[in-house]
Amino acid sequence: MADGFKKELITGNPSFEQSLRNKRIALIFFENSTRTRFSFEIAARHLGAGTLNFSASSSSVSKGESLADTIKNLEAMQVDAFVLRHPSSGAADLITGITSKNVINAGDGSHEHPTQALLDMFTLREYFGKIEGLRVIIIGDVLHSRVARSNIYGLLAAGAEIGICCPITLMPPDADRLGITLFTNLDKAIAWADTAIVLRLQLERATGGYLPSLEEYSVYYGLTDERLERIQKHLLVLHPGPINREIEISNNVADRIQPPGYSKSMLLEQVTNGVAVRMAVLKTLLTNEKSFA
Amino acid sequence: MADGFKKELITGNPSFEQSLRNKRIALIFFENSTRTRFSFEIAARHLGAGTLNFSASSSSVSKGESLADTIKNLEAMQVDAFVLRHPSSGAADLITGITSKNVINAGDGSHEHPTQALLDMFTLREYFGKIEGLRVIIIGDVLHSRVARSNIYGLLAAGAEIGICCPITLMPPDADRLGITLFTNLDKAIAWADTAIVLRLQLERATGGYLPSLEEYSVYYGLTDERLERIQKHLLVLHPGPINREIEISNNVADRIQPPGYSKSMLLEQVTNGVAVRMAVLKTLLTNEKSFA
Amino acid sequence: MADGFKKELITGNPSFEQSLRNKRIALIFFENSTRTRFSFEIAARHLGAGTLNFSASSSSVSKGESLADTIKNLEAMQVDAFVLRHPSSGAADLITGITSKNVINAGDGSHEHPTQALLDMFTLREYFGKIEGLRVIIIGDVLHSRVARSNIYGLLAAGAEIGICCPITLMPPDADRLGITLFTNLDKAIAWADTAIVLRLQLERATGGYLPSLEEYSVYYGLTDERLERIQKHLLVLHPGPINREIEISNNVADRIQPPGYSKSMLLEQVTNGVAVRMAVLKTLLTNEKSFA
Repeated sequence: MADGFKKELITGNPSFEQSLRNKRIALIFFENSTRTRFSFEIAARHLGAGTLNFSASSSSVSKGESLADTIKNLEAMQVDAFVLRHPSSGAADLITGITSKNVINAGDGSHEHPTQALLDMFTLREYFGKIEGLRVIIIGDVLHSRVARSNIYGLLAAGAEIGICCPITLMPPDADRLGITLFTNLDKAIAWADTAIVLRLQLERATGGYLPSLEEYSVYYGLTDERLERIQKHLLVLHPGPINREIEISNNVADRIQPPGYSKSMLLEQVTNGVAVRMAVLKTLLTNEKSFA
Repeated sequence: MADGFKKELITGNPSFEQSLRNKRIALIFFENSTRTRFSFEIAARHLGAGTLNFSASSSSVSKGESLADTIKNLEAMQVDAFVLRHPSSGAADLITGITSKNVINAGDGSHEHPTQALLDMFTLREYFGKIEGLRVIIIGDVLHSRVARSNIYGLLAAGAEIGICCPITLMPPDADRLGITLFTNLDKAIAWADTAIVLRLQLERATGGYLPSLEEYSVYYGLTDERLERIQKHLLVLHPGPINREIEISNNVADRIQPPGYSKSMLLEQVTNGVAVRMAVLKTLLTNEKSFA
Repeated sequence: MADGFKKELITGNPSFEQSLRNKRIALIFFENSTRTRFSFEIAARHLGAGTLNFSASSSSVSKGESLADTIKNLEAMQVDAFVLRHPSSGAADLITGITSKNVINAGDGSHEHPTQALLDMFTLREYFGKIEGLRVIIIGDVLHSRVARSNIYGLLAAGAEIGICCPITLMPPDADRLGITLFTNLDKAIAWADTAIVLRLQLERATGGYLPSLEEYSVYYGLTDERLERIQKHLLVLHPGPINREIEISNNVADRIQPPGYSKSMLLEQVTNGVAVRMAVLKTLLTNEKSFA
């Protein structure tokens, strides 16, 4: 479904069947977002749905109203779906027990970010033709990354092999039970992989015990042209954004979308794909609810 | 009119005549809101009107522009109605002297909140069949409550008997001139009443001179199953939200929407009714302006 | 084009050809705004375009994402135009080098605010019939004013004569190379002019070295009835808003829109014209992109 949506999206003057007309989708973001929030908003509107932008700071949450009560109240206004981003792991799952409406997890703490994984998988499938057998290396702050966790679950289910590469301090404690390959040496990780998902180093968490310094992290785990040239590897590079330029990824690697060179950046292609994938998620959930009951 | 709107709303796939097409409604909220703001936004869109979300923090109000100048400027952009929430009592009334466009008071300081009273009255009429002769007890911080004030005016005009129940420190100074019954004992108040409107204890104001402690308030004025069982009273319970759970209302009382039990909560029904009532308000004002001139 | 749009706008029930249907316009405001943001939003919707409201505080800009990356990401979601307000002079120009989509400068630092100048010029042309030969005095904090700069460029190109009047500390350093007349005496400036554009005194910048005090500024440079009567001058008065009442402009002068009196205020007319002019800007850019390539 997303394939079809993408074809229409990139025509420059897209027009879609209004299959979600008369539907209302609440975008409930307790954390900041550019890509995820806007792509859900654009996706919903392409399909004719109305969107409601809920931000904690201008709502009754600031008067102490709980998340559960907020959701129940919005449901009583006949909202048809909730797209929820929340700093607490498990927030979206909690909500599914409270409302009978569709709940889409747009990122919960350091737990999961499933639509990001779907768009990453869409991007890989489109480029390589299939995901099965593909070697995907995830580089960076895996410990705190909801993007990594959702991609590991999704890509394994689709038959890919997964490796993660990071300092031992940023490796999740259950890493050896996930059925993935662990690397601490970036050269070896890249040599092993067909493609890399580079994670954003969450600067607000990467101080103190996790990393000696950003400079040292960048030297050992930053993806640069120099490194790719040294090991003579051509790599397809994904990143969920926002990027920290010249920390986890160099400007050259982030911005090179055409050959020649040792890498091809899918960063902006991912963003376009995110609209198409989220359209497919919304249409599937909102036009055929029973099959997911 | 709201009756008809509600019937369509709860079908799950509501579709309405676009009677406010080409109308623009500015939602001007100087205070936070979940229920009121969203229900006005949803109501406006159901009728085909466009909505403009104005928040003080991202506007020229932060550069010192006055409320009056803000309204005059928005009017010059051909806005058709203003829905105004403002921390100053009298703000909406002030604006009616400035603009010839419709002004809807969505809460002004501790003065009035008329659409909340309309939706409460709609809820009571729907449940009891009529309001005349109904005994309504309003429990809590009446002094600071715009909800209480609008309900007192509205319900008295519709023929109800009103009681208020609160500590003497939270009773409005003009209470004995309002034509209502005053209670400080919650058991006696409930025994007297057919239904209760429980007010939110405004935690930010309930410190210092008004209350010895939240715990003491909750013991003497909190609505709980234990209290209802003790006096063997079955009560229909309304609350404008957001609720302070286990302070003015217990979880059981707030959440019980079906018998058996000593109470039935209308809290979420009120929210649904709020959309229907606000649709009726908008349609009445915006399609037939002259009759209100 | 704006003439035609205005005629329809002021009918009270305007309806326009949906020539921007299926277009998405991102309103990217890094500074607060009432007039500019809302008039662009209203203008876009009149023409059928969808609008996306981007504010820095709730986006990934707060995680350190650069303006350039923000724009590239939004472009990848198939946004058709960017309306950008930014505190840095040159921000809009920077963006035009990054995206192939239309970029509309809605104010960049103390540099330019071109659609404000267009609406001021529209207002003057409508009132006087033509701009050529018109003497326009710009009064106030010219040094920091993007409105002044755009008006000077635009009005000179259209054949007007321009004067600026301000304390020497608020005169731009390149003032004598702009082909304009410089005044420090307000009486002489007004006597010279056919019309005045009064600038907002940017209170946050007007402390310290620029002005001895607001009171002194107001005495020497405030536009009041007393001053106009003393020099027996009738003046058409424009101001971009928001106004500082009784500082750069008196209440009488700001609010008098009808004779008799020594001035006629165009402040609210400018706001109405702003919607019409911005509709024309959006339609021109978005329906005929090639002619501006």
